[in-house]
Amino acid sequence: MINKIFYLGIPGSNSFLAATNVAQNSGNLQGLGSFAEIVKKTEKDVRSLGILPIENSLSGSIFEVFDLLAKSNVSIRAEQIISINHALMGREETFINKIRHCLSHPEVFRQCRQFFLKHPEIEIVAVSDSASAAKMLKDSGPEFAAIANPIAASAHNLKIIKEHLEDRRRNYSRFITIGRKLRRKGNKISLTFNLRHIPGSLYKALSPFARLGLNITKIESRPIPGKLWEYLFYVDFEINEKKHNFRDIIREMKKYTKNLKVLGRYEASKFN
Amino acid sequence: MINKIFYLGIPGSNSFLAATNVAQNSGNLQGLGSFAEIVKKTEKDVRSLGILPIENSLSGSIFEVFDLLAKSNVSIRAEQIISINHALMGREETFINKIRHCLSHPEVFRQCRQFFLKHPEIEIVAVSDSASAAKMLKDSGPEFAAIANPIAASAHNLKIIKEHLEDRRRNYSRFITIGRKLRRKGNKISLTFNLRHIPGSLYKALSPFARLGLNITKIESRPIPGKLWEYLFYVDFEINEKKHNFRDIIREMKKYTKNLKVLGRYEASKFN
Repeated sequence: MINKIFYLGIPGSNSFLAATNVAQNSGNLQGLGSFAEIVKKTEKDVRSLGILPIENSLSGSIFEVFDLLAKSNVSIRAEQIISINHALMGREETFINKIRHCLSHPEVFRQCRQFFLKHPEIEIVAVSDSASAAKMLKDSGPEFAAIANPIAASAHNLKIIKEHLEDRRRNYSRFITIGRKLRRKGNKISLTFNLRHIPGSLYKALSPFARLGLNITKIESRPIPGKLWEYLFYVDFEINEKKHNFRDIIREMKKYTKNLKVLGRYEASKFN
Repeated sequence: MINKIFYLGIPGSNSFLAATNVAQNSGNLQGLGSFAEIVKKTEKDVRSLGILPIENSLSGSIFEVFDLLAKSNVSIRAEQIISINHALMGREETFINKIRHCLSHPEVFRQCRQFFLKHPEIEIVAVSDSASAAKMLKDSGPEFAAIANPIAASAHNLKIIKEHLEDRRRNYSRFITIGRKLRRKGNKISLTFNLRHIPGSLYKALSPFARLGLNITKIESRPIPGKLWEYLFYVDFEINEKKHNFRDIIREMKKYTKNLKVLGRYEASKFN
């Protein structure tokens, strides 16, 4: 039995949507104020899960989440990929020809330029996040609308007027589910390790992948602050569960890297 | 003579700060509404430069910028790393004990928790971005303050009340300067290439780096939407200009990769 599922923000956020995909019922969802809080609370309760965004097609990987995972006692238990759907919503008495003001996050407006070029009568109003934009419609008149995730409409009792306002439909966010226990099954593995800035060190570190025929689906590096020429790597790769032995792979990789930590083992999302 | 320097947003944004570091005088700075516009305008005028954020210590690499660079005719001519300084600012008659409301971006508040725990009398007000928060103080009373970059204070005629409100001082953003021409000198090179998801393909692609003793300072990959199992790589590496020949390296790398594109050649920032 799952106790709580922690996510960032308020009902209607993308994290909330990811959390509802994991939850059996919405009763155990709990919104928190920061990624760090989500990790901390998940660490404390073996029956709880946390939902964290880890990558998004526009702004890239979220380093803050990597850092929290590297330092914590939680592990990745699942991943999911959510496509962004910028939906126009309003109260029951709001219709598209009545709208004069539209609330959302500035980034959302940047992704929906074509719609606003076609509707110069609608003024855009920037607010801190799209879920809050939906929430704010509670006390507004029929000339107000918001752009947010469709689930924000059901969370705040609004009507969806038009879906997919975005100019290009290739936006997605990747979310992970974290929990206290490491799973023993799954064809995808995430890990971090350190390398010193020695010519060829990365090449050597990747030799086990080449030898074992493992597919790297993501590799990312960045300097470690305060440690000159030392780099933190984050690697996702897929294994063939019939062919590869998880423990052997990790043992082999440890020979070539420093501070190797398995962040989790899980099933690769089909979307990948 | 530089004609224009394009940056994202309004005076006082972090991009504006990066642009002022590049400009001889502020007369030729021009704020634009999107990264795409910056690239497009820089492409059209050989005497103009563009400023783009490419990475930040919390949210990671900015894929949108990589994608624009990969498709455009501009190249990276310089990089700079800016540390984040969350400064509290207000009008001349504002003092710390008078402040009751503070405006900024929600992310900024998350990074300045300690300060607000010490000042429960100050209400936080989330707005779309920190430079706009500073700008909004123009018509407000002495009980209002904003948190933004110190340069926002000079851009909007405000007084700095306290600097470095952030809990941890390790935040930075990396910015690049783009222009029409590829530089022929510089110890750092950025490039992109594609690889298919074949076991060992990355290992092979990295073999020239190992053989030539080149230091990779960043490597990042992600799936190319619509092309199953094909990955886009972004690599930064440093060369020894006395020892290595730029053209030889590129020729060698082309043997192992697809669609290799040199994004730029420039001097590595000392901060790295």
